[in-house]
Amino acid sequence: VVETVEWTEKGVVMIDQTVLPVEERYVTLTDVEGVAEAIRTMKVRGAPAIGVAAAMGLALAAQAADPERWLEDLEAARRILAATRPTAVNLFWALERMMRKARTTRDPHELIAEAQAIKAEDIAMNEAMGRHGAELIPDGATVLTHCNAGALATAGFGTALGVIRAAHLAGKDVKVFADETRPFLQGARLTAWELMHDGVPVTLITDNMAAFFMKNGRIDLVITGADRIAANGDTANKIGTYGVAVLARHHGIPFYVAAPSSTFDLSLPSGEQIPIERRNPAEVTHLFGSRVAPEGVAVENPAFDVTPAELIAGIVCEHGVLRPPYVESIRAALGSRSAVSG
Amino acid sequence: VVETVEWTEKGVVMIDQTVLPVEERYVTLTDVEGVAEAIRTMKVRGAPAIGVAAAMGLALAAQAADPERWLEDLEAARRILAATRPTAVNLFWALERMMRKARTTRDPHELIAEAQAIKAEDIAMNEAMGRHGAELIPDGATVLTHCNAGALATAGFGTALGVIRAAHLAGKDVKVFADETRPFLQGARLTAWELMHDGVPVTLITDNMAAFFMKNGRIDLVITGADRIAANGDTANKIGTYGVAVLARHHGIPFYVAAPSSTFDLSLPSGEQIPIERRNPAEVTHLFGSRVAPEGVAVENPAFDVTPAELIAGIVCEHGVLRPPYVESIRAALGSRSAVSG
Repeated sequence: VVETVEWTEKGVVMIDQTVLPVEERYVTLTDVEGVAEAIRTMKVRGAPAIGVAAAMGLALAAQAADPERWLEDLEAARRILAATRPTAVNLFWALERMMRKARTTRDPHELIAEAQAIKAEDIAMNEAMGRHGAELIPDGATVLTHCNAGALATAGFGTALGVIRAAHLAGKDVKVFADETRPFLQGARLTAWELMHDGVPVTLITDNMAAFFMKNGRIDLVITGADRIAANGDTANKIGTYGVAVLARHHGIPFYVAAPSSTFDLSLPSGEQIPIERRNPAEVTHLFGSRVAPEGVAVENPAFDVTPAELIAGIVCEHGVLRPPYVESIRAALGSRSAVSG
Repeated sequence: VVETVEWTEKGVVMIDQTVLPVEERYVTLTDVEGVAEAIRTMKVRGAPAIGVAAAMGLALAAQAADPERWLEDLEAARRILAATRPTAVNLFWALERMMRKARTTRDPHELIAEAQAIKAEDIAMNEAMGRHGAELIPDGATVLTHCNAGALATAGFGTALGVIRAAHLAGKDVKVFADETRPFLQGARLTAWELMHDGVPVTLITDNMAAFFMKNGRIDLVITGADRIAANGDTANKIGTYGVAVLARHHGIPFYVAAPSSTFDLSLPSGEQIPIERRNPAEVTHLFGSRVAPEGVAVENPAFDVTPAELIAGIVCEHGVLRPPYVESIRAALGSRSAVSG
């Protein structure tokens, strides 16, 4: 079993997701800068996993903090981690929760325990999402997913893939189409790999094939993860998700999102306020070191897009399957809790 | 200036499109098997260019034919070429035209001249399409294109890119977004390269980003080439085209096709009858020799899809811009001419 992010005596251990599936390499990070660099370079990625990694990064900072400058040191570490990636709100949520704890104690062990609690709760939320979401998947269904919202994107089990796993474990015949998810190829490299390990039948396609298989009646439903969900249900997720949602609507195929409550940002009324990360053009122009585009070509590389709530048939969270109108169903499920954005 | 396919005394010379833009390598093919292999492996690709290459392949066969077995030898060569790729009808159209000529003469020079005429006419048709199509592109427009329908896909100038080039040459301010077009990356490798050579501003994006830029108002119209157009206007083109057309419709953006009359197959009442090539899974799982997916993963690799006529705002051919209803406008433009499918 792969551990996405693990707290050990030697430091924070992660499987390096940039070299999967060709290589299963683990890295051990011993300070906050190392964790920040791992998040920035996507050695660890996926909104919930980023949150767990950041919490453990702050726990490392707590171990190293000068007790005389406890809050200052932790605040400096928080700033380093908060600057890594702007879109996934779980990062800011986890950092805020760790800082709340830091204001009540100067014992690093309590911050380590808090980070481990965040991880344990994430797994529990994934399992609860699996139970709720599995009901959405009919026996014999073929599910399209985009990017990787699996064990590797979370503390374990997964959000969208957790729902698929739960249906599979319940004995349903579930097949998956995985979009390869350019530019970073999370679908090809991570989702296909996870599902093959679990014995869930998976077929890899390029992103631009999804419409073809929808038109040919080969896809029954779509489910993806999320990086940030606004108060009205608008959902930021990996670039390409919005297009898949439009295509699903055109073909009358339900499009679902699965995400734990740490992904909701009730401080934002709509998806228009969600910051969209722009990443290095080299992710598009180079693949595993090979150049695949002309030298000097202009490139756009938005890492996320926003799917409007009206294209989303349901949002699976640990409390159940939320349905439109989301302003009400989200508020009812999550109460007045609001995530903090960076 | 790049020559996509050229008849020379030494044989048929092509630029190898599998290694562009990293390398500008030319190959010289001296027999029909060599030309067939170049078509199959996509050293030459693009429906009109495939037609020209196949015609020149038959001309090579004519040079080598035993005068006593003239038609048998040419028919054997025709069969080899016809078996290379099933979707682009220009291949079968060009082969049929060459065989018609072969039935009237036993002079290889006449077949060489016929192949060169097919090439010259293709360039002339592209230029005519450019004149008609340029009117569709407003000054200041940003055009999205998918795959490569440029000089490299034709005998020269291009279909969709020919329209863009013509607007640019007419002094209009035209910008292009090029989908990279997985799995073969014709957009990244060929379209971006062609447009940069011509000084047309081009921005490279991954296929799954098109919806994002449409939503953000960054794309004014879409234009692509075609591999086969049925009598009702349904259009087969590179995989992903159909999805782009659906997204364009959702965002109220006009979607155009540009193709010469050799791309129309009036023997097919609708796109449902167009054969869709399935290619090697390794095109999806490997990129420039690097494996990007788990060993043994199941893959689907349809090379084309069909865009229904109702999503197409206009079809640019050498006779003008055809408009719906296409059953009538196509028949009026092309008369009783019908391409032969393989």
